[in-house]
Amino acid sequence: MTFAQRTQNALTQSCICVGLDPDYDWLPHDIDKSPAGISTFLHEIVDSTCDVVSAFKPNFAFYESLGLEGWRVLRDVIRLIRRKNPTAVIIADAKRGDIGNTAQHYARAVFDELDADAVTVHPYMGGDSIEPFIARPDRGAFILALTSNSGASDFQKLTVKRHALYEMVIEKAAGWNRHRNVGLVVGSTHPGDMKRARSLAGDMPFLIPGIGAQGGDLATAIRENRNGRMINAWINVSRSVLYASRGTNYATAARDAVLTLRNQIDAVADAVHER
Amino acid sequence: MTFAQRTQNALTQSCICVGLDPDYDWLPHDIDKSPAGISTFLHEIVDSTCDVVSAFKPNFAFYESLGLEGWRVLRDVIRLIRRKNPTAVIIADAKRGDIGNTAQHYARAVFDELDADAVTVHPYMGGDSIEPFIARPDRGAFILALTSNSGASDFQKLTVKRHALYEMVIEKAAGWNRHRNVGLVVGSTHPGDMKRARSLAGDMPFLIPGIGAQGGDLATAIRENRNGRMINAWINVSRSVLYASRGTNYATAARDAVLTLRNQIDAVADAVHER
Repeated sequence: MTFAQRTQNALTQSCICVGLDPDYDWLPHDIDKSPAGISTFLHEIVDSTCDVVSAFKPNFAFYESLGLEGWRVLRDVIRLIRRKNPTAVIIADAKRGDIGNTAQHYARAVFDELDADAVTVHPYMGGDSIEPFIARPDRGAFILALTSNSGASDFQKLTVKRHALYEMVIEKAAGWNRHRNVGLVVGSTHPGDMKRARSLAGDMPFLIPGIGAQGGDLATAIRENRNGRMINAWINVSRSVLYASRGTNYATAARDAVLTLRNQIDAVADAVHER
Repeated sequence: MTFAQRTQNALTQSCICVGLDPDYDWLPHDIDKSPAGISTFLHEIVDSTCDVVSAFKPNFAFYESLGLEGWRVLRDVIRLIRRKNPTAVIIADAKRGDIGNTAQHYARAVFDELDADAVTVHPYMGGDSIEPFIARPDRGAFILALTSNSGASDFQKLTVKRHALYEMVIEKAAGWNRHRNVGLVVGSTHPGDMKRARSLAGDMPFLIPGIGAQGGDLATAIRENRNGRMINAWINVSRSVLYASRGTNYATAARDAVLTLRNQIDAVADAVHER
């Protein structure tokens, strides 16, 4: 199956992506602060949410900071997701980017060693740094366009030939999209720019961080990315789901948080649809 | 010791950095194509070159593509360098970059788990994505400014307020350099821009890839980065040293390649000095 088909398929079911960012400082109280504890925690979270979301996004930083065992935890959680929900899209949030020859090794790591479907990548080094991630039609990349953090304004919004840099990134990305396996990261903390990003991006799937902890606007994200009844974007939620409860009920609380979000999304989508 | 002192110290001895990028396709013929084989290979290379260079730069892509064992190989080679040459600067060429909270986890991985002195980082996500890497005076970051690959022209040379984007990156980087632990990656494949980069960067150390396999100009790199008899930059060489021979003499061939480069650097530096 191509990445485009897999994405379309998944987004028809749900536009919710759960970010799997395990952090010792936030774990439920009865989970051991160890790689093994995190493994148990993630297992329960995936088990409890995998039938009501269509994507998972482990952020590599949270695994690398665990030391050598972190990569084993990461590989195991990806295998678990594959088993529990074979149609879910697994996005390696690794934010890689290096020259072509080196990027091939990163692609091998995320696609072959870890078996992720897609990876997030930095655009700064240009086309040859992204090509190895989008060379296979069955895997894809989400290029950072407009990120959700405050530093986004340092460079991404600078004006280049009357356009913001992020707009130039989107235009280039659209040109690289011959296999329909290029998506974009567009933060929900820039409601005024979301519409602009969508108008440039055509039907490229978006990965939208920033809802929840970072204060991004859900309704705007839904409105700007509707395509009929489908939402052509993943709304990523991490902390608000993973750490919905620090008690023993953390897994059911995570599921409840996803269901609440799903209701909110449906309400916005219905309101727009009926207008 | 601060990163600034460590860097100054190291660059007084040598401006050569050896990139440790192990690749199955290039290994000497009698080295086993396995993580263990690569470990042996790197051990010999470090052993043979550590007294004639002042920095090592493992590129993480080549370790991550080895699977779980890759991180062990990476950790072990860093430990070996520490033991063999305690004054060498170890640059984690990981090209990371994520929002502040997440970048803290990457910083923990490269500085605490792996014990590198510095890390290469993408600027695209701006100040808060870089801050966690430069918050400690004893560790530092090299920010990608002008990279050595062809894709560098896609964004880095776009004109922003009459400046190229890479110039804006350098200006911002200079502003973030309160601990004197910020350096820049400036590829040697842009001779016309090296001088400009240096004029904006003051005395920030450069990490210069692209000499050798990528065809960058050594003489320009030396000339533009001289500070008295010191060269305020690391000339990085990877393949031309690591794979100087595919025979059993690979370790001595690697050392010879470094010594040849040292002679070339000295010759250029002397010529400039005497002018």
